[in-house]
Amino acid sequence: MLETVRWITQGGAILDAPDAGVALLPGKLRIIDQTQLPQELVYLELDDLDEIVAAIQRLSVRGAPAIGCAAALGLAAVMQHVTVTTVAAFMVQLEKTAAILAASRPTAVNLFWALNRCVTTLKDAVSSGWYTVESCREHLVAEGLTILEEDIAMCRAIGSHGAPLIREGAGILTHCNAGALATGDFGTALAPMYVAHEAGRNFTVYSDETRPLLQGSRLTAWELNQSGIDVVTCCDNMAAQLMKSGKIDLVLVGADRIAANGDTANKIGTYGLAVLAKHHGIPFCVAAPSSTIDASLSNGKLIPIEQRSAEEVRHVGNQLTVPEEVRVYNPSFDVTPNDLIAEIITETGVHTAPYRFT
Amino acid sequence: MLETVRWITQGGAILDAPDAGVALLPGKLRIIDQTQLPQELVYLELDDLDEIVAAIQRLSVRGAPAIGCAAALGLAAVMQHVTVTTVAAFMVQLEKTAAILAASRPTAVNLFWALNRCVTTLKDAVSSGWYTVESCREHLVAEGLTILEEDIAMCRAIGSHGAPLIREGAGILTHCNAGALATGDFGTALAPMYVAHEAGRNFTVYSDETRPLLQGSRLTAWELNQSGIDVVTCCDNMAAQLMKSGKIDLVLVGADRIAANGDTANKIGTYGLAVLAKHHGIPFCVAAPSSTIDASLSNGKLIPIEQRSAEEVRHVGNQLTVPEEVRVYNPSFDVTPNDLIAEIITETGVHTAPYRFT
Repeated sequence: MLETVRWITQGGAILDAPDAGVALLPGKLRIIDQTQLPQELVYLELDDLDEIVAAIQRLSVRGAPAIGCAAALGLAAVMQHVTVTTVAAFMVQLEKTAAILAASRPTAVNLFWALNRCVTTLKDAVSSGWYTVESCREHLVAEGLTILEEDIAMCRAIGSHGAPLIREGAGILTHCNAGALATGDFGTALAPMYVAHEAGRNFTVYSDETRPLLQGSRLTAWELNQSGIDVVTCCDNMAAQLMKSGKIDLVLVGADRIAANGDTANKIGTYGLAVLAKHHGIPFCVAAPSSTIDASLSNGKLIPIEQRSAEEVRHVGNQLTVPEEVRVYNPSFDVTPNDLIAEIITETGVHTAPYRFT
Repeated sequence: MLETVRWITQGGAILDAPDAGVALLPGKLRIIDQTQLPQELVYLELDDLDEIVAAIQRLSVRGAPAIGCAAALGLAAVMQHVTVTTVAAFMVQLEKTAAILAASRPTAVNLFWALNRCVTTLKDAVSSGWYTVESCREHLVAEGLTILEEDIAMCRAIGSHGAPLIREGAGILTHCNAGALATGDFGTALAPMYVAHEAGRNFTVYSDETRPLLQGSRLTAWELNQSGIDVVTCCDNMAAQLMKSGKIDLVLVGADRIAANGDTANKIGTYGLAVLAKHHGIPFCVAAPSSTIDASLSNGKLIPIEQRSAEEVRHVGNQLTVPEEVRVYNPSFDVTPNDLIAEIITETGVHTAPYRFT
């Protein structure tokens, strides 16, 4: 079991949850270096801007909610050490720092959102005229911890709404990592599992390894195992056989983006699992914060599918696995149509078809 | 394009096929060391029994037909160097050598079959009373080459029967390696592609990487690329998205074992592709030699599914990808029910449902 060092977050009395690693120590951002999992559990304590940017870039911290929390707390940590004497100079430095952090992952919406919120709320507060440099620093700590606490509350609510899906003795298939390591707390897709586990239910989670970056085997299997939940890893191409052999009662995954009609973009491989689940009569469910819903998209066909670097597939570690001359197809995610989704669980509750998010 | 050094096989005028590597040089078995692909093309020339056994064990040569050919030619090569003076002593040595080779891969039916054929036919010939040690040696060379030639003819026939499936401009998805590297010639599932390519047709093959051992990306992508066929590799979990995006017109795979009713055991992941193909209205076809059909099995439920070592999944190269404490599900193959199979192509022709193999 992981220690829980979230004592500084005020909300912190979460004893059975794995520690997602994002926390604010006095003057420092603390994260787990996910690139070193599952070999080693390494905590990074960072207060240098360049080091925080580098950690985000090399995916030491990943998962939209976790990146948002880390950015906000990282901004607060960096700004603790800024040696300026006027609020005006502090604000100049803040905007500069936030801009550099924002550029670390160009497509991470939560990153921009969290940084923008910290800067905007402080600007508003400063405009009252009562703020000192010290109270600016305190504001950033408080705002960062509030973002983390809201994330914890979101995870908890998804967990509570989704926990009834996790039956005693069930087998649950998940994909990628939508867990503690991707959020400030329990995760999204994994939250119902943690809540059911806390309630004493016994079940087995099958964690697809999730090529090419293996978040399922490296991260999901690691964090569930740390928490004492029974977990089995398999290769992605074994999911169909698992379903056929009767081991799977539920497929539960996270989401990157959900359209107004419920079409759901998530890590590549998710759509295939949804088709396989339908063939085998197994419910396929999505768990994600409502911030993932993009009501401006009427349906999932409007979501462009980004191709990622061939190198992600071509090498595993230092080993060449695809000839250099051979092309690689490497879409980052796919879109699961709403008619394959039995339930979408958010912090507001359980949604079923027809989905009409506004 | 690979060179074709199959000059000693007598059948050898195959200029456009990739060289599968199994050949008999004077007194030596020659194979490609598949464990070094795709990094490097290394030929092994072997005449020492222990070295041949080690090469089979470490999967330097793999694929049922290729193992059969390599065992027969390896037996012939080893026996060229045996220094005995009587036929009786030669036969004692032969049976000993064949038994050691047979023990190298305990579940490889083609291995036993090929060795048994070489020993039995020589025993019969010797019983005529006219054989010398030298003619025994010649017999083994001739029998080994006959097995290789029959394998070449089988591949060619499957290729001819299946080639009409490969339309101009088509996208074809395949899984694992049922190609030149697995046989004495063109392969089985890949044979129709090689024949269509020889006929000047243009098409693209999508080769699933095929976790855990990556035969699709390491071997299939390599050999198709060597032969000038357009090939793209993807992770196994990307197949559904490929189908959805309209890139796939046909799924064509090999088989380990086919029941009398057409149910087909093949590399893990095959069954999932068949389900996905059905969902997308794409024909799913199997190509395999008729020796793969086991008419004693009325259906595929009678085929037990072997679990392989967790280590295959847990490490890629030297990199740990699954925590040591986490269990691994690693079935070696799955069974695709006949109702998902549009055609089964063997050297005798194209078979369609209802399958009733006898």
